Amino acid sequence: MRVDLEVELKDRSYPIHVGPNILDDSALYTPHLKGRQVLIVTDENVGPRYGERIRAALSDYDIHTIALPAGEHTKTLSTLQSIFDVLLEQRFNRAASIIALGGGVVGDMAGFAAACYQRGIDFIQIPTTLLAQVDSSVGGKTAVNHPLGKNMIGAFYQPKSVIADTTTLDTLSDRELSAGLAEVIKYGVLWDGEFFDWLESNMAVLLKRDAAALTYAIRRSCEIKALIVARDERERDERALLNLGHTFGHAIEAGMGYGAWLHGEAVAAGMHMAADLAQRMGWISQGDVGRVRALIEAADLPYLAPAEIDEQTFLSLMAVDKKAVDGGIRLVLPTAIGATTLTADFDANLLRETLASCRTQ
Amino acid sequence: MRVDLEVELKDRSYPIHVGPNILDDSALYTPHLKGRQVLIVTDENVGPRYGERIRAALSDYDIHTIALPAGEHTKTLSTLQSIFDVLLEQRFNRAASIIALGGGVVGDMAGFAAACYQRGIDFIQIPTTLLAQVDSSVGGKTAVNHPLGKNMIGAFYQPKSVIADTTTLDTLSDRELSAGLAEVIKYGVLWDGEFFDWLESNMAVLLKRDAAALTYAIRRSCEIKALIVARDERERDERALLNLGHTFGHAIEAGMGYGAWLHGEAVAAGMHMAADLAQRMGWISQGDVGRVRALIEAADLPYLAPAEIDEQTFLSLMAVDKKAVDGGIRLVLPTAIGATTLTADFDANLLRETLASCRTQ
Repeated sequence: MRVDLEVELKDRSYPIHVGPNILDDSALYTPHLKGRQVLIVTDENVGPRYGERIRAALSDYDIHTIALPAGEHTKTLSTLQSIFDVLLEQRFNRAASIIALGGGVVGDMAGFAAACYQRGIDFIQIPTTLLAQVDSSVGGKTAVNHPLGKNMIGAFYQPKSVIADTTTLDTLSDRELSAGLAEVIKYGVLWDGEFFDWLESNMAVLLKRDAAALTYAIRRSCEIKALIVARDERERDERALLNLGHTFGHAIEAGMGYGAWLHGEAVAAGMHMAADLAQRMGWISQGDVGRVRALIEAADLPYLAPAEIDEQTFLSLMAVDKKAVDGGIRLVLPTAIGATTLTADFDANLLRETLASCRTQ
Repeated sequence: MRVDLEVELKDRSYPIHVGPNILDDSALYTPHLKGRQVLIVTDENVGPRYGERIRAALSDYDIHTIALPAGEHTKTLSTLQSIFDVLLEQRFNRAASIIALGGGVVGDMAGFAAACYQRGIDFIQIPTTLLAQVDSSVGGKTAVNHPLGKNMIGAFYQPKSVIADTTTLDTLSDRELSAGLAEVIKYGVLWDGEFFDWLESNMAVLLKRDAAALTYAIRRSCEIKALIVARDERERDERALLNLGHTFGHAIEAGMGYGAWLHGEAVAAGMHMAADLAQRMGWISQGDVGRVRALIEAADLPYLAPAEIDEQTFLSLMAVDKKAVDGGIRLVLPTAIGATTLTADFDANLLRETLASCRTQ
């Protein structure tokens, strides 16, 4: 039983399909394939698991596959070059399509490759992690990393369709499942207090991978993100709210070296730090911070930044973040459970207090 | 005395300013600079000539400069990486701007870097070659080359403003001036028979760099290109007409090794080859082909492809061109002086005849 949503972006609108075993359904692909050439971009873990099923669903097409090494360290310009090498060696033309089969790293790379190849060819996303299903499947952000910053080189580029097959989550590690739940919690904190309540009641069954609970969580997350992205596709304004926890989180990821912390883990701790700072500013109550922390803990996620990153390094890493405008830091901070704001108007001393108190000892 | 045009692309519309010594006019920059950080991307020839004048015009800004090696071989992903290195080392944020100061190579690199850095920052173009002023200043095509094909990796990304300072053409070599005139001739052939007539009468004064003649030629070329791009920004259809001569031309550039022939030289020969094929198809007269060839010769440009590229290599290089759809070649062919069409409906044997007869012996 499949659920379909539409991301409304005028001539760039596209459907998201959520459900079990839907990646075998060729009818979900063929309306979006302009030509006969298809490149599956995947990684060495996911490719062997699902690649053949996609080939079977698309038996009439001329399909090539590139399996990248798994992991965040793959997200570089030089990996991108290796995708272009295949596209050109196989003489892919502008009617060709890319299918991104994998987690966020694969989606980012494949989407950015599609954005740039011949100045833009179509792509379909098949996210196979919870994080990718609830985050990168909506909004068209694609990017690679630079040694000096995460996601610093990229494009806004929308897929033609997203196929979120919930059965692909069965093989996720517990750690990766939790990392995905960090973004799910984020939607509750930033937008929807009732969804946050629901998550408090259902975190245990989500961790047990209850299919109905996961489907609801994915669907509601995508709905919230789609709503925000539709209002502000290019992140001039409202879309920045989706970065709740990310300025802190990126500093953790960069400071620890990409890959040491999962993105969702860093976002979880960052979200708690944002709540902590908001409480110090007098915007939310101690009780709300406690609820955020408790839900993060219930999802088996860290809520403190690692002690290894000293305060000055942390601040410096935050300032290079994309949300920084002209040197000053702007932060997304909750104003309640279910509401949030983007502001440069916070007390730098309180930020230092947050950095001091929200680190492991 | 400055001429201003507007390229109409809805929320991506932008002005083109044409005139002598306008690059000193800070009023042409400041409305388009969101933040205080500015990176001038230039090359080792052009930078020393005009960089200081831009710095003087923008004395209130935080300006850095990167001077790339001059030439087409610079247009690679790895050069792009060096631009990102500077942007990140200098902690440029999303409000920063890039100024592209140079010819088409610099414009392509700087524009693509602006398109990708933090998923898009603003850029201003200061084209300093005739080719760049009449071609890359309109339409937002940016790209780098791949060993297997020219301009294969890029983006459609519009500048905020174009400052075409005609006095920068004084230091162009004769060869580069002629290469720019190839694209000017192209606008006459593909769109405007009267402009073609005017070019026939004025080619001698253009080669003498008569300021008024150059200004008119640049302005009319930009007008025609802007009109076509406004109708079809992402080259789904009509915009492809601007590629008259380019499918042949790219094959020449790739076959000879990028840089051996100037782009405009390859386009000139390619345009004559397109006219020759159109005549063999019975679409235009021998007389019109003769006029095209004569005007190309009058501009000191080659009208024949080099003998070094054999027929099979030439055909193979043409088929990988972006205009190729699903393996078949589509070509832009003139149907008159001042009119052209995009077609897959040509006789492959006649194409072979053109390749045989339009090569130096």
